[in-house]
Amino acid sequence: MAVLCRPAIAVPEHVLTLEQTLQLARDMHADHPQLGLALRLIENTGVRTRYLVQPIEDTLRHPGFEERNRIYEAEAKRRVPQVVYQALDNADLTVRDIDLIVYVSCTGFMMPSMTAWLINTLGFRPETRQLPIAQLGCAAGGAAINRAHDFCQAYPEANALIVACEFCSLCYQPTDLGVGQLLSNGLFGDAVAAAAVRGRGGSGVSLERNASHLVPDTEDWISYGVRATGFHFQLDKRVPTTMKMLAPALRTLADAHQWDVSGLDFHIVHAGGPRILDDLCHFLDVDPEMFRFSRATLTERGNIASCVVFDALERLFAEGGAEQGARGQIAGFGPGITAEMALGSWETGERPAVAGQTRRSAPRATVV
Amino acid sequence: MAVLCRPAIAVPEHVLTLEQTLQLARDMHADHPQLGLALRLIENTGVRTRYLVQPIEDTLRHPGFEERNRIYEAEAKRRVPQVVYQALDNADLTVRDIDLIVYVSCTGFMMPSMTAWLINTLGFRPETRQLPIAQLGCAAGGAAINRAHDFCQAYPEANALIVACEFCSLCYQPTDLGVGQLLSNGLFGDAVAAAAVRGRGGSGVSLERNASHLVPDTEDWISYGVRATGFHFQLDKRVPTTMKMLAPALRTLADAHQWDVSGLDFHIVHAGGPRILDDLCHFLDVDPEMFRFSRATLTERGNIASCVVFDALERLFAEGGAEQGARGQIAGFGPGITAEMALGSWETGERPAVAGQTRRSAPRATVV
Repeated sequence: MAVLCRPAIAVPEHVLTLEQTLQLARDMHADHPQLGLALRLIENTGVRTRYLVQPIEDTLRHPGFEERNRIYEAEAKRRVPQVVYQALDNADLTVRDIDLIVYVSCTGFMMPSMTAWLINTLGFRPETRQLPIAQLGCAAGGAAINRAHDFCQAYPEANALIVACEFCSLCYQPTDLGVGQLLSNGLFGDAVAAAAVRGRGGSGVSLERNASHLVPDTEDWISYGVRATGFHFQLDKRVPTTMKMLAPALRTLADAHQWDVSGLDFHIVHAGGPRILDDLCHFLDVDPEMFRFSRATLTERGNIASCVVFDALERLFAEGGAEQGARGQIAGFGPGITAEMALGSWETGERPAVAGQTRRSAPRATVV
Repeated sequence: MAVLCRPAIAVPEHVLTLEQTLQLARDMHADHPQLGLALRLIENTGVRTRYLVQPIEDTLRHPGFEERNRIYEAEAKRRVPQVVYQALDNADLTVRDIDLIVYVSCTGFMMPSMTAWLINTLGFRPETRQLPIAQLGCAAGGAAINRAHDFCQAYPEANALIVACEFCSLCYQPTDLGVGQLLSNGLFGDAVAAAAVRGRGGSGVSLERNASHLVPDTEDWISYGVRATGFHFQLDKRVPTTMKMLAPALRTLADAHQWDVSGLDFHIVHAGGPRILDDLCHFLDVDPEMFRFSRATLTERGNIASCVVFDALERLFAEGGAEQGARGQIAGFGPGITAEMALGSWETGERPAVAGQTRRSAPRATVV
């Protein structure tokens, strides 16, 4: 059974508080007819701090798509290795044990992908499969877990490494003045994350089942405008109501697994905004406390896109994890509108080792 | 065993011949100091015709990245459905039988991805998993086959659909005047392709093993410059020598499967240029005739990026396919430098049906 091990997260050094965000909005958009609404929406996100790859003065400038993307590449190469090493260490694996790298990021574009650079630079085997995904947005954290799960399901001796790199501040567009865009300017943060999925051994979430769900005809609710100035985030005001449509999909998945979604022991979900968490409590009949990890991520770091689920999961680990066999769900939500969902049970990794096997001797994949 | 079924391919209606290409190069770059070299390189590709989504006058204009991407989206939506339906029909499947859509395309960028539009518009189930890949370039055809194979390996009752959409002409950059870029202008063509991978049943290539190989430290040999004007294709002059480094990986994969790569019955490889095919003959000790499908694709349609392997495979089908159990390889090559390789044996699908099963009753996946 594939086990999603303890993630590693890092946020950049440039802090932006809610107060600073509100003041910037007041200063920059003093004449905006909906400034009051935008300020209230930003306050209501509950985001207290965010961390950015550049100082705020540089973040607010738009040096052009080419330069933005150059910064993306440089910052990714500077910040990703440390979380990769930490995640591997968390999973008792080395670079040589990894058979697949799933790299998810929707805030920069590189070809070759960062996967090639990681393999070349950090010493992964040249045979490591590369799976870069750029077009699933915030749902990509869940998708990465699910595709890594599928891979270990196909090759039970294999190990996968997930890397999520989101520098949302590099998609800031000074000329976008819609209320949804002003809200987004106060919501998103930057982060990098990594986590290993072990085909055998390891401690964390033993992945049992995954599923995807697309809400019909909501393609234009969350989308990118692709322009000379780069990616423009476009948020429809109906998005906050999304959980009404996705909660049933979460319940259906749990039902299919003969689990009661309301009685799960842990919930690691994408915290796109506070309404997602409030609505999930309501529609899934779950105590708000159960979403404390996702809420803490949102409060302390903002919406860090595909990194959210890893940040929230890391907080569960930091709290001491769960009991052996505790049941939980992981879900990423993003454009489509798409949910990428997983069910798993907690594996403490403390069961007696089988003779001849120890946790430190990572099993190698038989796949070439 | 997962079976890659007969692909469907379509090329646009706007034809560009080698003679026209050469004349355009002479007219547009009369003063270019290396015009002679560029013309010789273009002639040496062996590409006789290409098919473009727009008339040549429009192709040569650059209306801006936003408009280019808008054309990409419109043309993809216009042209992809027919190959999807044809590929499903070829595999005796319907949209309801598909559990995963792998969409590969490096010549436009959409979020949500085309996978969401396909699900919404063509009636795939909302549970269909979406795997859009934009950053593997020409290797993505092989990668799509391999990830679909992995998925059916994980869920043997599942079916995957691969869609490749490459409008290389939308990456034409009038200001790029390097010899490699002039050569590229004479090499790439547009196409869309689709193919189903059935977990059970079907006829075609029964996928047995796959692998990836990254040639160390060749990231800058094939790359995109990401600019306000869109994606700029950058080709290093060392690329034609790539097969010297990738042929050993092909041999290693076959050896691991206890097959002799020189004795395979069919070869379906990415025809990036004529040197790839010539060198593979040499390094793998294979008769040039064995690469006739890939060579025909290159000659008649140009380098159609991730679509090449499907176009070449379709030609094998059109020739009547191979004998039951015939052994072959499929390989995509692209930026990284990466090879995505697969080994499979021919399945005629004509074995007696198991009681209670017929070919037309497509098995459904147990996965939600």
